[in-house]
Amino acid sequence: MKLYTYWRSLATFRVRIALNLKGLTYESIYVDLDAGQQQQSNYKSINPQMVLPSLVEDDGNVLYQSQAIMEYLDEVYPNPPLLPADPRGRARVRALSQITVADSHPLIVPRVRSHLAATFNLDEQGRIAWVRHWLAAGLDAYENHLSRDKATGTYCHGDQVTMADLCLVSHATGYRVFKGTIDQHPTVLRIVERCMADERFASAQPLRQPGAPAAH
Amino acid sequence: MKLYTYWRSLATFRVRIALNLKGLTYESIYVDLDAGQQQQSNYKSINPQMVLPSLVEDDGNVLYQSQAIMEYLDEVYPNPPLLPADPRGRARVRALSQITVADSHPLIVPRVRSHLAATFNLDEQGRIAWVRHWLAAGLDAYENHLSRDKATGTYCHGDQVTMADLCLVSHATGYRVFKGTIDQHPTVLRIVERCMADERFASAQPLRQPGAPAAH
Repeated sequence: MKLYTYWRSLATFRVRIALNLKGLTYESIYVDLDAGQQQQSNYKSINPQMVLPSLVEDDGNVLYQSQAIMEYLDEVYPNPPLLPADPRGRARVRALSQITVADSHPLIVPRVRSHLAATFNLDEQGRIAWVRHWLAAGLDAYENHLSRDKATGTYCHGDQVTMADLCLVSHATGYRVFKGTIDQHPTVLRIVERCMADERFASAQPLRQPGAPAAH
Repeated sequence: MKLYTYWRSLATFRVRIALNLKGLTYESIYVDLDAGQQQQSNYKSINPQMVLPSLVEDDGNVLYQSQAIMEYLDEVYPNPPLLPADPRGRARVRALSQITVADSHPLIVPRVRSHLAATFNLDEQGRIAWVRHWLAAGLDAYENHLSRDKATGTYCHGDQVTMADLCLVSHATGYRVFKGTIDQHPTVLRIVERCMADERFASAQPLRQPGAPAAH
């Protein structure tokens, strides 16, 4: 498999963790989002939306959208599972995942930041404020859901890693990249620290990818 | 089941179609988004994110996030299916669904429009331009994906309705509410027209819900 990836892409971070957890090896193809390489024709022919990630299987089948990719990997490589076995648990994990995948992350991606800059003449400080606002709203949503629900365990759902943890970790890591702290979200903090102690999560994180700036 | 709903909510529109297709009856509980009722404490106790929809089962189990709800309904009430049987087809349908659920719709919901108004002093015309920009980008993404892929059939994926059609229809309907036309997106137009000829789709649409303005 080939993963079209970039160090900073949080959606690709989720998929990198999933590939690690499933024990799958892949070739990384770097698409420099800061240089706009995702808008060049050779990438557009793979993914007409010109966004990361894309995962291309050995026979050329192209997968896109991070949650759809995680669901696919979970169906084709079922161990360890990324979803619980019961429908209600699966619904809860998917809904928690979508706090990131639907409600938060799409608001902060490069194409939105560029549009804000062009439309509202927004400077870098304004763009950072925008990003932090929506990631903080997502963290509040996670904390409110996780802290009140007895289905929360060592991880977002019980004591096994699920897709929701991959999403939460990418969300919290993104917030930290933008100089936010998750210390005010104790349930989030506990789960993220637990996940990031696992090398399969930690090695997938943005600052450990080729092209990333030195850790700070 | 009880569905927390509002005429204009596109995420709830998707769930209303799914419930109709599955032949499930439900009680509607109206949450007036224009009056901010979603932020009142009695709704917050059901959904701490204070967004629509929520679907509450008869024993009190609360489901939220439109795609998670559609997946749940499909697992518990499998006929007719909203996803194809093969993993690659399922991945494609989920990815197409997320063009709406992840990449487009979250950018235009009330909380984002309110934040834009408060942060950038954006007036109604500016908010409408913002909404149309992101829905148009999503329509382009759909057309690019659907028109080039031989897996596209009468519907988004072959000749059976899937979750992707529910998402596409909600997306196109939203665009029309904001005075956009989908005539420039022929594959989208063809599929949407086909779906909306089915009363199970049409009866779920915003302008046919209680509280909606007269059709225009």
